[in-house]
Amino acid sequence: MSEELGITVKKDKDFSEWYTQVIQKAELGDLRYNVKGFIVFQPWSVLSMEKMYKYMEKVLQKKGHKPYWYPTLIPEKNFKMESEHIEGFTPEVFWVTSHGNNEPLEEKLALRPTSETAFYQMFALWIRSYNDLPFKTYQRAQVFRYETKATRPFLRSREFHWIETHCAHATKEDAMKQVYEDMETTKEVLHDIYGLPFIFFERPSWDKFPGAERTFAADVLNPDGKVIQQPSTHLLKQSFPKAFNVKYKDKDGIDKYTWITCYGPAISRIFASVVIVHGDDKGLRFPWKIAPIEIVITIIKPNKKLIKEANKIKEKLEKENYSVEIDSSEKNPGEKFYFWEMKGVPIRIEFGEKELQEKNLVIFRRDISKKEKIEQNNLIKTIKEISSTYDKNLIEQAEKLFNNAIVTANDKKSIKTAINSGKIVKCEFCSVEDDGKECAEWIEKEVQAYVRGTKLDETEKPEGNCPICGKKATKIVYIARSY
Amino acid sequence: MSEELGITVKKDKDFSEWYTQVIQKAELGDLRYNVKGFIVFQPWSVLSMEKMYKYMEKVLQKKGHKPYWYPTLIPEKNFKMESEHIEGFTPEVFWVTSHGNNEPLEEKLALRPTSETAFYQMFALWIRSYNDLPFKTYQRAQVFRYETKATRPFLRSREFHWIETHCAHATKEDAMKQVYEDMETTKEVLHDIYGLPFIFFERPSWDKFPGAERTFAADVLNPDGKVIQQPSTHLLKQSFPKAFNVKYKDKDGIDKYTWITCYGPAISRIFASVVIVHGDDKGLRFPWKIAPIEIVITIIKPNKKLIKEANKIKEKLEKENYSVEIDSSEKNPGEKFYFWEMKGVPIRIEFGEKELQEKNLVIFRRDISKKEKIEQNNLIKTIKEISSTYDKNLIEQAEKLFNNAIVTANDKKSIKTAINSGKIVKCEFCSVEDDGKECAEWIEKEVQAYVRGTKLDETEKPEGNCPICGKKATKIVYIARSY
Repeated sequence: MSEELGITVKKDKDFSEWYTQVIQKAELGDLRYNVKGFIVFQPWSVLSMEKMYKYMEKVLQKKGHKPYWYPTLIPEKNFKMESEHIEGFTPEVFWVTSHGNNEPLEEKLALRPTSETAFYQMFALWIRSYNDLPFKTYQRAQVFRYETKATRPFLRSREFHWIETHCAHATKEDAMKQVYEDMETTKEVLHDIYGLPFIFFERPSWDKFPGAERTFAADVLNPDGKVIQQPSTHLLKQSFPKAFNVKYKDKDGIDKYTWITCYGPAISRIFASVVIVHGDDKGLRFPWKIAPIEIVITIIKPNKKLIKEANKIKEKLEKENYSVEIDSSEKNPGEKFYFWEMKGVPIRIEFGEKELQEKNLVIFRRDISKKEKIEQNNLIKTIKEISSTYDKNLIEQAEKLFNNAIVTANDKKSIKTAINSGKIVKCEFCSVEDDGKECAEWIEKEVQAYVRGTKLDETEKPEGNCPICGKKATKIVYIARSY
Repeated sequence: MSEELGITVKKDKDFSEWYTQVIQKAELGDLRYNVKGFIVFQPWSVLSMEKMYKYMEKVLQKKGHKPYWYPTLIPEKNFKMESEHIEGFTPEVFWVTSHGNNEPLEEKLALRPTSETAFYQMFALWIRSYNDLPFKTYQRAQVFRYETKATRPFLRSREFHWIETHCAHATKEDAMKQVYEDMETTKEVLHDIYGLPFIFFERPSWDKFPGAERTFAADVLNPDGKVIQQPSTHLLKQSFPKAFNVKYKDKDGIDKYTWITCYGPAISRIFASVVIVHGDDKGLRFPWKIAPIEIVITIIKPNKKLIKEANKIKEKLEKENYSVEIDSSEKNPGEKFYFWEMKGVPIRIEFGEKELQEKNLVIFRRDISKKEKIEQNNLIKTIKEISSTYDKNLIEQAEKLFNNAIVTANDKKSIKTAINSGKIVKCEFCSVEDDGKECAEWIEKEVQAYVRGTKLDETEKPEGNCPICGKKATKIVYIARSY
């Protein structure tokens, strides 16, 4: 394959250029659409993201979330009902103000940047008593944000594809149970299906969602040492149920305000992490369960007979529910091999005159880049074996990198050194409440890194002092650069 | 069940009120969202529409359409590139004009009412030679139209959920082949899966899509005698590929403009037809393949033991991939039965102390409203039998009604009589080109009905004269009232 068609940089050497090339050459998204910050998602990413949606929705439904489709437009007045929310989101809102031939709308409508202010007015109509709680919902939707930072395809766009769950609970304790359930869902889907290692943090007080009492989020690691915030969960302040009057009658018939949580896995953004975490110098490596296709049959020197026989192999595989494509193009074998490796298809079957004669097949697996010759009779058995261990291999590779990236540091200098060499720093810290903000700002200014928060699922106890201010540490935090 | 909870009118007596009650009482959509013409789609419709999407997308992908996600926003300048299109759609466009704190955008952006003007500029970048053709795409998306007519949930909303396919072809003949394929897809999905009988028409010249050379559409029948246009297919004028420069090099290396077709099954609107065509006086009747759940187990006088046993039955069914819910509420059996019949679940299993003792189950099927007592051991066998014939029953019932609604009429008076009694009229007609428009307008004015067009897949030949103007008939057309 010519240099220009393949990926021409090493992932570790020039990650940014590597990412740009993979998006373009594997035809994941086209950046030439003529609205700034918007891209066209192409089949090779859409097919994978549809599978990502499917798994996420299946788990959410199993846990009792019911699917809704809300309007894309939210009246300005809804938006203004919660003061922190309007302050936090207004700068990013696109406004629909007219229709037809410049006729003004009666009221400005927001293209939803998120849907709290659409959902909760309806919750107020539907929720009556404690019997209705927890009230667990979700929707698959696009959201829109007028980003002022530089956009990057999939990572930060002005329109992205996500799921948002919104749940109302009787008590704050029930709401916190939901936060833990969301963390579990993140593990079941992001880790176990998409193959992405992460840490589920509680964010420091100065880094919360507008209108949240507590904010939680999973951070995934990039090879350049930056972390990306993937799903976040928010325990909202009661200013939300109060603004939208989301009440219930408890067992004694007394009206109480609900507690509301929301969780937002952004599928098109998580897809970026799938590309980044699993990709290598040759290009993409899709986890089996979310690969656009699982198997490609590349015919070597294609002719009528070989194409016919390849179709028989395809049918046999499809009967077992594998998704298969045949490459019978006139390119030379090497070109074909590199092309499908760049595209990240888990298995390539090489099939030519020799294999036809000898009743063999050559199987190449992308996870460990190994070829093996098998008898045609053993095809299904072999594919079953590979598919059952494939994702495990990818996850283990990703976990190793992730765990190696975490280092402990106890003073300013070693924090700086570690961050500069692309690590995530674990360290003791004075406080994640407002009084720790000054130390976090020092880190931001001097190291260009951020206090990502405390691990939700661990009760590590600090024993020393904050490496920044020297006061007694109250928390163990993680520090990293981020997107 | 109290009168208020059930459907209180007969479908045939007051169809409009029946429809309103079904939408509300079966919790398909909530009309109380505070933007005019927008509704909240509730779980009971979303679960079904997701299945509708799944089947439609599967068939489209099988036929070689690749999935894309385009931006929701289209620049005003794209929109203006095809003059008929801008004229036809501008009155219905919502415009995004500002962001943040009333800061104007550099360019007005349309909330897509349809995506021709977004797709084809990208086609121009991607299509190079005849080898790339046919270039078959689709997207699942919401579209937005500032409707000035009265909106009705699912039938006509300002935001609806659809699929749009866009295909580029080398020749007009290839494009017409795509039109026939779209008709076949409509049959495979709307008829065979959703159970909706339809006629696939070519629309008269005066009733074409803005920018189309020929327009085709499937009409589905309502019990009030009105037809609803469901998917339409357009063979676009070459003004579109010319405006967006969608060219290819033919085998001789000569640049030629492509021919473009598009097809638009509006899932949320087709859902209205599913409700309308299959529903009866008790409420919904979902086809098996697109039912939100397939089976409900209603426990009679629930207690711990019965709930435990019901869960065992549920697990047994789920192992066979059936979707099942248990109703262990405290309502009396009659109330539960009516509730789930109103919700349209295909099968209800009645299970109480008596059935537990006798190792029996009572099975009620919604398609033919019949109960049957079976041994518990025969459960899976029985469900398999029912599920294999269920949709066939519904389709046959719908087809009978549809075919009975079509009558032949040969003069003005009998056309009027037939239309007034809720029929679709088949009649000979002078012309479906512009010179037939006057006769069509007479029908519109005098009978409040419309010439829907000529059947695409039939070559019926007229023998007499046009019943309106008396000139020699050139076509056999169908006339109906419509939404």
